[in-house]
Amino acid sequence: MIQAAAFHFVLLTSEGKGTLIKLVYFSRKDSSLESVGNGVQVEEVGLVTSSKKYPILDGKLHFAKFQTSKINECLDFIESKLLHGSCCSHQEISDKKQLLIKATGGGAYKYADLFREKFGIRLDKEDEMDSLVAGANFLLKLRICAVPREAFTYMEGQKDFVQIDASDLFPYLLVSIGSGVSMIKVDGDGKFELVSGTSLGGGTLLGMGMLLTNCQSFDEFLELSHKGDNRNIDMLVRDIYGVTGYSKLGLSATTIASSFGKVSFDNKELKDYKKEDLARSLLRMISNNVAQIAYMNAGHGQLKRIIFGGFFTRGHEYIMETISDGVQYWSKGKAKAMFLRHEGFLGALGAFKSYEKHGLGSLMGHHLTEQSPVASPR
Amino acid sequence: MIQAAAFHFVLLTSEGKGTLIKLVYFSRKDSSLESVGNGVQVEEVGLVTSSKKYPILDGKLHFAKFQTSKINECLDFIESKLLHGSCCSHQEISDKKQLLIKATGGGAYKYADLFREKFGIRLDKEDEMDSLVAGANFLLKLRICAVPREAFTYMEGQKDFVQIDASDLFPYLLVSIGSGVSMIKVDGDGKFELVSGTSLGGGTLLGMGMLLTNCQSFDEFLELSHKGDNRNIDMLVRDIYGVTGYSKLGLSATTIASSFGKVSFDNKELKDYKKEDLARSLLRMISNNVAQIAYMNAGHGQLKRIIFGGFFTRGHEYIMETISDGVQYWSKGKAKAMFLRHEGFLGALGAFKSYEKHGLGSLMGHHLTEQSPVASPR
Repeated sequence: MIQAAAFHFVLLTSEGKGTLIKLVYFSRKDSSLESVGNGVQVEEVGLVTSSKKYPILDGKLHFAKFQTSKINECLDFIESKLLHGSCCSHQEISDKKQLLIKATGGGAYKYADLFREKFGIRLDKEDEMDSLVAGANFLLKLRICAVPREAFTYMEGQKDFVQIDASDLFPYLLVSIGSGVSMIKVDGDGKFELVSGTSLGGGTLLGMGMLLTNCQSFDEFLELSHKGDNRNIDMLVRDIYGVTGYSKLGLSATTIASSFGKVSFDNKELKDYKKEDLARSLLRMISNNVAQIAYMNAGHGQLKRIIFGGFFTRGHEYIMETISDGVQYWSKGKAKAMFLRHEGFLGALGAFKSYEKHGLGSLMGHHLTEQSPVASPR
Repeated sequence: MIQAAAFHFVLLTSEGKGTLIKLVYFSRKDSSLESVGNGVQVEEVGLVTSSKKYPILDGKLHFAKFQTSKINECLDFIESKLLHGSCCSHQEISDKKQLLIKATGGGAYKYADLFREKFGIRLDKEDEMDSLVAGANFLLKLRICAVPREAFTYMEGQKDFVQIDASDLFPYLLVSIGSGVSMIKVDGDGKFELVSGTSLGGGTLLGMGMLLTNCQSFDEFLELSHKGDNRNIDMLVRDIYGVTGYSKLGLSATTIASSFGKVSFDNKELKDYKKEDLARSLLRMISNNVAQIAYMNAGHGQLKRIIFGGFFTRGHEYIMETISDGVQYWSKGKAKAMFLRHEGFLGALGAFKSYEKHGLGSLMGHHLTEQSPVASPR
């Protein structure tokens, strides 16, 4: 039985064609709810309260996602789980208006009618950025007993989990790399500001990547980039000042002076370049640029942490690696990029958190323990 | 007769193939030196001191440029002008070591032997960035009597000259857009720091522009961009949040959310897009990005002025316009991008200024008057 649930509709295209539905739901410890149902892969995170004040927390958080092109799967899944939940009586369920689920993102509007008509589920809309921040704060404050398992750094192929003291969390910068990039300074629970952003984001990487390499997907683009050498495309400092660089100004010989700069002097056409090299150069260009603007917006180190997330970052190791390299470069090694394991569910988690307003108890006022995660989320 | 002269060798390619030689020289008022000689176009700026203490300033500054592929033209020109100059006696000229010309840029090393062997001219090397800054300070402090004619803003096709009070000049940010971009905070004469930069510069614009549009030159690329519509390529805020934008966060509907973002969702190939649209999108992407990083490096308005220059900016109206738009956007209308008319000669002017160290008098210690400029430099 589902105790509480929330949706995040992540719009990926202007027409909503590629929208993902992120679902977070909570079940009691004694629930018979199966982790996996109807062929849908569900990740679960066991939560145990350190106090007995909020028994609702003796249970599990579940994470699932669906493509809106297969929205029926989502609706079937919800029906199989939610409509037998204990949060509503059968009488309440038959009264369609009683069932209310927190939702955020553009699809909370787009699919409102469908959910109401098919299941009598009313989508209670939460602001998307409010939800992202609330979700991030929730994850970052998760007190882990034994091993940290949420926030991590990624350098040289190595993922290192980091324990963050909740009392030392704020302020931090949340960088969400979707098609574009939003940079949000978070000062506390419910206290945040969209301080900056850049239009050079994931959409740029994939859009340009498709034009330059004819790749058909983001994964294909990333695979290409991993095999490439950007030095055949970019102009390095050594190409201008020689192998000693311009040491007086602190520019090493291998620093990229001009992305795609070599191309501007070659008398060559697109077909003359290796796709792998073009992909690598483009990836470094966008990642470095996001890292630079993020580091500057973090006040050149005044904010303690920069957390990167969003659809184009999560789970993609090459992206995490180049972003980490970028932050390393621009901060002269003083700062490290951080990532969140469940970052793909920030919006849904934040919407879920907003049940607190409805008296479903505080999830944040005390310590949580994570138990035996099933798999790394994508 | 040439009183003093200086070179700036502007390296445009890693092999030095496209290097430009910028020449600045000074002649006395009573000199018979012609403005135009040997088919070389020379711009001149008349200077009159407001005191009689430095008679050297009663004369003209001349600006000329040569491609190193035609270096013989440069050498002939120098021979025709310089070797009859009054700075050296015939005896001194015959003693090859006596003739010393200030020079900066990579070619000051590369062409040192050629100049010495052919003319007995010794190139006295000055640091390139020192020279750029000294040249900028020189131009910005030029006291204009009647009409300001050096620094200007460029908005909506309109060039507006700006009078800057020399006592209110520092600090400012000098942004040099070459193949890459250097950002220099200038605190005074000889006081500056390379604070930042970006690898997304002119080389990126031209390199990517060539790959995406098959254009053969920068001018061709800019012409294409002027006819294009980036809204067919970029994803705007309205494509995500609808025509009302995301007003809560201050994002208008027409803000670019993701450069090339639309491409990432189209099932189209490069040939299916209009070259003009691709060029326009690329130009806006790079210009906005340089403007954003510059504005941030100017401490979000703490530095009074941001001066943009460099090979990819100068004289190119579309570039100046998009950079101005970018600064306008990121500063929310508080800051304006500025440009310099003689900016193409900063390095040479700065090297020229370094004659002061050799007792050729201060050019900066008093007021100069500009008279009847011949033409706008490119």
